[in-house]
Amino acid sequence: MLNVLLLNAYSANHAERLRHLLTTNWQVSTLDESEREASLEAALRSADALVTTRYGLAMPPAPRLRLIQSPVSGHDRVVAMAIPPQCTFCNVHEHEVAVSEYVMLAMLEWKIRLARLDAGFRAGDWTGGVGVAGHTHGELAGKTLGLIGLGHIGRAVARRAKAFEMRVIAVTRTPRSGEDHVDAQGSMKELDELLPRCDFLAVTCPLSEETRGLIDARRLALCKAELVIINVARAAVLDEEALYTALRGHRIAGAVLDVWYAYPTADNPAARPSRFPFHELSNVIVTPHCSAWTDGLIERRWRFIAGNLDRLARGEPLHNIVLRPRLAAQGGAPTLTCLDN
Amino acid sequence: MLNVLLLNAYSANHAERLRHLLTTNWQVSTLDESEREASLEAALRSADALVTTRYGLAMPPAPRLRLIQSPVSGHDRVVAMAIPPQCTFCNVHEHEVAVSEYVMLAMLEWKIRLARLDAGFRAGDWTGGVGVAGHTHGELAGKTLGLIGLGHIGRAVARRAKAFEMRVIAVTRTPRSGEDHVDAQGSMKELDELLPRCDFLAVTCPLSEETRGLIDARRLALCKAELVIINVARAAVLDEEALYTALRGHRIAGAVLDVWYAYPTADNPAARPSRFPFHELSNVIVTPHCSAWTDGLIERRWRFIAGNLDRLARGEPLHNIVLRPRLAAQGGAPTLTCLDN
Repeated sequence: MLNVLLLNAYSANHAERLRHLLTTNWQVSTLDESEREASLEAALRSADALVTTRYGLAMPPAPRLRLIQSPVSGHDRVVAMAIPPQCTFCNVHEHEVAVSEYVMLAMLEWKIRLARLDAGFRAGDWTGGVGVAGHTHGELAGKTLGLIGLGHIGRAVARRAKAFEMRVIAVTRTPRSGEDHVDAQGSMKELDELLPRCDFLAVTCPLSEETRGLIDARRLALCKAELVIINVARAAVLDEEALYTALRGHRIAGAVLDVWYAYPTADNPAARPSRFPFHELSNVIVTPHCSAWTDGLIERRWRFIAGNLDRLARGEPLHNIVLRPRLAAQGGAPTLTCLDN
Repeated sequence: MLNVLLLNAYSANHAERLRHLLTTNWQVSTLDESEREASLEAALRSADALVTTRYGLAMPPAPRLRLIQSPVSGHDRVVAMAIPPQCTFCNVHEHEVAVSEYVMLAMLEWKIRLARLDAGFRAGDWTGGVGVAGHTHGELAGKTLGLIGLGHIGRAVARRAKAFEMRVIAVTRTPRSGEDHVDAQGSMKELDELLPRCDFLAVTCPLSEETRGLIDARRLALCKAELVIINVARAAVLDEEALYTALRGHRIAGAVLDVWYAYPTADNPAARPSRFPFHELSNVIVTPHCSAWTDGLIERRWRFIAGNLDRLARGEPLHNIVLRPRLAAQGGAPTLTCLDN
């Protein structure tokens, strides 16, 4: 019998689901945030695996811990040096389906404006239809989609965009051959050449020191006036003030923004997402960091987590390894990879 | 020098575009609706080709006419027996890109609800995002899309839906092999077996005596409660009262409706689209017959029309023939084919 501890509320909600999915012999226990301080030390002492979004230097010893499994993809709240040396750190993806569906919806809605057509038509307005001359909408076919980042999400977007007869061009840290759904691919250094060619630009890269503030005022000035930016990565890849200024002044046509510069807290559950009033602009569509947040995602992620626990129990290689055990490493400091969403 | 006459306002608006696209020697003239009665007889006497959406038995003689070219796809206002015996009747398609983009948008919006998320988030509501538990949205991946009709539009929808990892099943008048993007295909007789399997049902067939009222109360009762119907074909394929009743009573989950049971007229430009108040239902998205109506459509259609005129001038075979000249026919009455949109 192995012990897996689901550490925070996000994980603990899914204990029953996990028990149902596991095929090896695990004791699944949870620790509520409120009782955490008192019992964390005892629970960690006997845990073989831990499902958590956070792991810091203040954690008590975890001598048996062999797997820290994040139930999300991003891991900016896991401190690499805090991870016990015998322990592997893994994350999950599975969100590329949901996020790519959101990106395609964003582009289609931008071109067709279903919400506006519906509202008008309910009020008796036939504008936009075949019977009223002069009001056509746009198409995705033939348009150019630029991707910043070509990881799980970028590739899922590219595959869908090609079915819409779009031209797909991408910059990525590590250009790879065999990307069937990408018409042209370059390194991040070639971003300045990519930008002026795009009708849509989807930001699908991880946030890192390399990508923080990547799209700034200078780069926005390289874009077409028709450009629509879709950000499903991290807000800080786009310079906050430069983006707001470009949108307000119609330097670019618009943006569909799902990720933000500020998030709600327990004290302030209706926090504004930026120090600028993006929500007052008419040329944006704004959503509350929901693009990945589907029923399908949750089901797939917990199936993956159960699979990794089963692999650990059977002594099989783990999947989605972000950080290998330092004890087994070839030396050097641990480095994090796969930083996307 | 050949003469082509653009007969109604819809065509006449595009005379300059047509002149620019033609590569053979045509005189392009137009006839406004208001002056039509007086000069139609003279104009038709010298016309080699006519671009029009309507052609009836009251038309004056057209002894030189070799091509009636519809600038749209549907041709319920062209009377087959009125067409001069030496004349070919052609239509255009080119709308499959636009209509299939609308269908994909309809399904994505149904699952994600971008419009609702945007409205809430502008008001400071983070519901739907990662930070607020319990509010996830849906995905297209893994869902089953049924298609009634597998012509230009059905195939374009299928190709896109497969890129979203949907299961695509179709019924069609003439099942064909080699439909790579369709998982299962049957004849119209198999509709009753298709319906209970669908999460989405897209109506993409022509209106004919075979399809009028095809989806009635009995067939709606075969569908899943989760079914969402998307109609981009002709309203009358769905029985008006049965559809309204099923939607109002939540017998099916919803509908995205772009085609209607009544259309505006000069006297009543804000005509209600149905004798039932579909526009008061919360489980529908309604639009004014706009799905095909894009900039790209118009450009592609006039390029096609110029191409057909060029082919006529060069003695080459015409494309998109709906009705061949009766003089050259093998006998029997003329029959119309390709009735979709």
